[in-house]
Amino acid sequence: MISQNKIKLINSLNKKKFRDQNRLFIAEGEKLVFDLLHSKIKINEIFMRDDWQPSDIIPNEIACAKLTEQQLKKITQLKTPPPIIALCSMPQKNMDTNDWQHGLTIALDDIQDPGNLGTIIRLADWFGIAHIVCSQNTADAYNPKVVQATMGAIARVELHYTNLEDFLTAQSKNKIPIYGTFLDGDNIYAQELSKYGIIVMGNEGKGISPAIAQKINKKLLIPSFSSSSTHSESLNVSMATGIVLSEFKRR
Amino acid sequence: MISQNKIKLINSLNKKKFRDQNRLFIAEGEKLVFDLLHSKIKINEIFMRDDWQPSDIIPNEIACAKLTEQQLKKITQLKTPPPIIALCSMPQKNMDTNDWQHGLTIALDDIQDPGNLGTIIRLADWFGIAHIVCSQNTADAYNPKVVQATMGAIARVELHYTNLEDFLTAQSKNKIPIYGTFLDGDNIYAQELSKYGIIVMGNEGKGISPAIAQKINKKLLIPSFSSSSTHSESLNVSMATGIVLSEFKRR
Repeated sequence: MISQNKIKLINSLNKKKFRDQNRLFIAEGEKLVFDLLHSKIKINEIFMRDDWQPSDIIPNEIACAKLTEQQLKKITQLKTPPPIIALCSMPQKNMDTNDWQHGLTIALDDIQDPGNLGTIIRLADWFGIAHIVCSQNTADAYNPKVVQATMGAIARVELHYTNLEDFLTAQSKNKIPIYGTFLDGDNIYAQELSKYGIIVMGNEGKGISPAIAQKINKKLLIPSFSSSSTHSESLNVSMATGIVLSEFKRR
Repeated sequence: MISQNKIKLINSLNKKKFRDQNRLFIAEGEKLVFDLLHSKIKINEIFMRDDWQPSDIIPNEIACAKLTEQQLKKITQLKTPPPIIALCSMPQKNMDTNDWQHGLTIALDDIQDPGNLGTIIRLADWFGIAHIVCSQNTADAYNPKVVQATMGAIARVELHYTNLEDFLTAQSKNKIPIYGTFLDGDNIYAQELSKYGIIVMGNEGKGISPAIAQKINKKLLIPSFSSSSTHSESLNVSMATGIVLSEFKRR
């Protein structure tokens, strides 16, 4: 069973305003929900199709409502409802850590596209990056499209939304190297890259904003190997993130 | 002016069957059309909005029809018609070359998603790869979605559709190294990678098919750096292509 009020609440979580108000988000599908169950993220309630058998154990302390296919259709954001949907609490942000000095951190300067954000979260997970620090205008990681696109990685990577300029200023004072890619940067393949530091990736259309660019003390370039003068001007931001992370981690 | 028959022809090119029958495809938008004009691809006819001034020169020998916005709407595949649309001939395929021994070639084993194919063509352009050899079941590069996703790169990279198994057998006899990524491959970051050879990328769901896998003599692995046992199992195929190409080209 599910009440009309609960259906209304869940559907409202499609909007950032209501996600922020309630500090809740939705995760759909078996892989994603079980990845979240094994993470630090708190699951408040699970909705499961009444004739479905999960492949993993759902702890007794989590409320679990059995719904019909028709009822699941009322709460899913997907075309076909998956057999399991979870209502989750947004994790508490804790930026009061020394992690910035012990590993690589990704900083996102106004990434707009949910698909790019999802891909970058997945890349962070792949390359063992613990934190992504986002400017306030970056797409919301708890947007259902982003949550799905991360394929479970959102359970393992900590996302922080903050004033990026202030964050970089503070880290710069701590002598943490701050990297970013620029057309006039140094060839990334020929640089000594540190084992810790912050890698800033810029907006899809505008790149890294001038205020943020001022905080960057290591300018990098991913060179093109094309012999044509009319070759593609740039790599998509998520592709650039993948190539940069691979280069930092390869040693 | 544009005839009803021409409108019908152009719209039919949305389907692979009619593209193959007519050996024609459509390119939309200023950047893409001018990139094609500066390439080896033959443009048969251009359709341009009557009140629009192009930033570049259109050679006199190319027929150029001036159309109203309403007429352009009848032939565009996009939501909003761009000011310029070109009707292009599919280039003749010439696989009788020694290029395989002089540089890197990408081979695609049944890539299905037009977005992935477009991204891979764009990556080939970025990394200076001249040829992509595709299995017969790979998505069609002249699909309007792929053409747009390449952002002009389709003008600079040669695409070949062929029996991939036969192609790899022939190149293997020529002692050309054939690379592919596998879960049991050797760490790509620790390998000597050759300056020429064929890099096979597999289908989104199934990976490299068993018959093609038999032709691969250098098995590679892109390792994950995640400390979590439940980390993402794989990178998307276009992301994996970007990371592999970066690693081959970086020296």
